[in-house]
Amino acid sequence: MRLMLERSLLLIVDMQAGLMRVIEHGEQATTEAAWLGGLAGELEVPVWITEQYPEGLGGSEPHLLEALPGCRLWQKVHFDAHAEPAFASALAESGKRQIVLCGTEAHICVMQTGLGLLEAGYEVYWLVEATASRRAAEAVLAKERMVQAGAVPVSADMVAYEWLHRCDNARFKQAHRRFLRPRAGRTLIF
Amino acid sequence: MRLMLERSLLLIVDMQAGLMRVIEHGEQATTEAAWLGGLAGELEVPVWITEQYPEGLGGSEPHLLEALPGCRLWQKVHFDAHAEPAFASALAESGKRQIVLCGTEAHICVMQTGLGLLEAGYEVYWLVEATASRRAAEAVLAKERMVQAGAVPVSADMVAYEWLHRCDNARFKQAHRRFLRPRAGRTLIF
Amino acid sequence: MRLMLERSLLLIVDMQAGLMRVIEHGEQATTEAAWLGGLAGELEVPVWITEQYPEGLGGSEPHLLEALPGCRLWQKVHFDAHAEPAFASALAESGKRQIVLCGTEAHICVMQTGLGLLEAGYEVYWLVEATASRRAAEAVLAKERMVQAGAVPVSADMVAYEWLHRCDNARFKQAHRRFLRPRAGRTLIF
Amino acid sequence: MRLMLERSLLLIVDMQAGLMRVIEHGEQATTEAAWLGGLAGELEVPVWITEQYPEGLGGSEPHLLEALPGCRLWQKVHFDAHAEPAFASALAESGKRQIVLCGTEAHICVMQTGLGLLEAGYEVYWLVEATASRRAAEAVLAKERMVQAGAVPVSADMVAYEWLHRCDNARFKQAHRRFLRPRAGRTLIF
Repeated sequence: MRLMLERSLLLIVDMQAGLMRVIEHGEQATTEAAWLGGLAGELEVPVWITEQYPEGLGGSEPHLLEALPGCRLWQKVHFDAHAEPAFASALAESGKRQIVLCGTEAHICVMQTGLGLLEAGYEVYWLVEATASRRAAEAVLAKERMVQAGAVPVSADMVAYEWLHRCDNARFKQAHRRFLRPRAGRTLIF
Repeated sequence: MRLMLERSLLLIVDMQAGLMRVIEHGEQATTEAAWLGGLAGELEVPVWITEQYPEGLGGSEPHLLEALPGCRLWQKVHFDAHAEPAFASALAESGKRQIVLCGTEAHICVMQTGLGLLEAGYEVYWLVEATASRRAAEAVLAKERMVQAGAVPVSADMVAYEWLHRCDNARFKQAHRRFLRPRAGRTLIF
Repeated sequence: MRLMLERSLLLIVDMQAGLMRVIEHGEQATTEAAWLGGLAGELEVPVWITEQYPEGLGGSEPHLLEALPGCRLWQKVHFDAHAEPAFASALAESGKRQIVLCGTEAHICVMQTGLGLLEAGYEVYWLVEATASRRAAEAVLAKERMVQAGAVPVSADMVAYEWLHRCDNARFKQAHRRFLRPRAGRTLIF
Repeated sequence: MRLMLERSLLLIVDMQAGLMRVIEHGEQATTEAAWLGGLAGELEVPVWITEQYPEGLGGSEPHLLEALPGCRLWQKVHFDAHAEPAFASALAESGKRQIVLCGTEAHICVMQTGLGLLEAGYEVYWLVEATASRRAAEAVLAKERMVQAGAVPVSADMVAYEWLHRCDNARFKQAHRRFLRPRAGRTLIF
C-alpha cells in the first residue's frame, strides 16, 4: 500500500491549545502537521481538522489554523471522529480512500479514529512524528496497535515523496524549494 | 478490534503477595490493575481475579482485594486459568467475549491464560503497564509473543476511553473526575 | 501455538568450542541451553545437538556435552541441518513436531535450520537467551526474521512452564526444586 | 522465504556522491553494499545500480563503481525504479525473482522501489546495514513499513551464507577466504 495524490486526505485530530501544553513532543507534532498540511494545500490534497469538545478544551492551536487557511473544521463529542455521522458521510462523499492521520492524543482520539476508519474500509497512514500523547510511550503503543490493525506507519517525508512520485517536473521543483529543502536538515524525534 | 463496555471483562492473574515482592515494576502493576479495576466496577464491567496455588504462594495482594470489593475470586493449579473447567464454564456463561488481561508473571500464568483464551475464541487485550515478570525483559517477550498470537496490546488509558466512547454524558464526567484526571499526570513505565 | 511435552524436541545448533569464543553473550547462550537441556532430559524430551564441520571448527563445548549425556549428536556440512537427508529422516521418524531451537550463529546456522524446519511443516520455537551471534545485533535481526516467517519467540522459562502445565504434581515439585528455583534469580540478557 | 543463488539479483539504489555526504551511517552503507556486490560478482549474481537524476545529484560514489566493474547502471526520474518502463522490462527479462535491495534514502527511493517490486510480485530482501537515510530513525521506520508490506529484513552475512548454502566445496572456501573472514570482525550498526 502506498499513497497516491488524488486519493489522499490529511486528517489532523484534536490539536487543541488546551491539550497541546501537556503533550510530550507536542510542539514538534504541531509543527510537522502544519508542514505537511502546507504541502497538502499546495498539492490540492484536502486537509481536515477535528476538535474534541472545544467548549471545554479550547479551539485548535492558533498557528495551525493560520498555516492551513483552506482546511475544513469539525467538532465532535465521540473520541472516534468517524462515529460522528456528519463527518462519516462527508468523508465518504469526498471520494478519498487514503487517510493520512495525525494529532493528539495518539492513544485516545487519533487511535480510535484510525480504528473507525479501518473498520469502514479506508487505508490509514499513521504519521509518526506528528502524532503524540501526554506520555510518549503511550504514543508508541498506539502506533504498535494501529500497525497490528493494518495501518501503515509513515513519516511526513515519505508522504511527500509518494505524493510527488517523480522529480522531473515543475510541481516537484516548487515543492522541493518551498517545502522539502527547508525541512531536510531538521532534527526530529520519531 | 476494539473494546465495548458491554462485552468486556477484566481478568487479573495471580497478583499474590508472595510473588509480587520479586516482580520488576510489581508495584506499578498492582496499582494500575487496581485503578482499572476500580473504573471497571464503576462501569459494571466484571472483575475476576485468579490465584495460583494460594496454599504455597499466599493470597492476593491485600490492597488489590480492598480496592475491588465486587471482584470474583478463582483458585487454580494450572498455569493457564482457562485449563480449569469451572473457570472456563463460568467465563463462557458470562457472555463476555473481550478479556482485558493483566497480572503476573507475564510470561508464565498471564501468557498461558492468554493463549488459552485465544484458542477458545476470546478477544484478548494485553494490559501492558499492569503485566509484569521477575525480569522485565521477559514480560516484553511475553507481550511480543501474545501480539504475534493475536492479542491486542493496550494501556489502561486506552481501555478507559474505549469503554467511555464519548465525552458528553454524565458517565464520562464522573469517570473523568474520579479516575481519568487524577491519573493523568502519573509517570508510568510501559 | 504453545508447547506440549510429548510433542517437543530440543535442538541445539553448532555450539562448538572454536566458535563460542567470538560470540557475544556466548557464555550465557551455552549455560541456558545446558539448563533447558537438563530439564528436557528429566522430562524425557529428546535433546539433539548439531556440529558444523567439526574437522575445522572443533567439537561441541565440552561442558555442554557433559551436562547432556543423553543427547544425540549430528554432524553437518549444510548450514541448514534440515538439508542433511539423514537428519531430516530421523527427525520425521521421531514423531516430534515442536522444535525448540537455539545455538550459534543465530543468523546463519540457527536461522537457516529454523527456516528449513518451518518449510517442512514443523512448529519452531526460537529460544532467545540461548541463541547468539558474533554481533548481538545480528541475532536480534535473525529473531525478527524468524518471527516474521512464523517462528514463536520463547524464553527457557516459558518453555519449562509450558512443558510442566500444572503445579500440583510430583513432576512439577521436582523440576521446581532442581531447575526452576535455582535459576529464578539469575540475571539474563534477552 | 530464503535466498537462492540462481534466483537472486542485488539492486543498489541511488548511492550518489552528492547525497551520501548527508546520510547518517552513509559510509557504512556504501562499504557494505560494495562488499556484498563484490561477493555477488564472484558468485555470478547480477548487480544493478540506479542513479536518481544524476544531472542534479551527481553520479554514483566512485569507489562503489570501482569495486563493482561488472554492474549495470540505470538512470531514473521516478523515485521508484520499477516505475521506469525500461528498468521494469529488463528486470522481468532477467528471470531473477529475489531482489536484495539496499541504498539511499531508505525511506524515499529504496522504499518506493521495494514497494514497486513487491506489487510486481518479486521477493524483496531489505539489506539493513547498507540502507540509510539522512535521519537514521527514518531508515528504521522504512524498514518497519517494508517488513509490514512483506519484505524480508536481512544482513549481508545472512545473504552470503544463504547464497553459499554449504561449507564443503571450493566455492565456499574461496568466498570465506576472500570475503567472509576479512569482514567477520568488523563492527557494524544495524
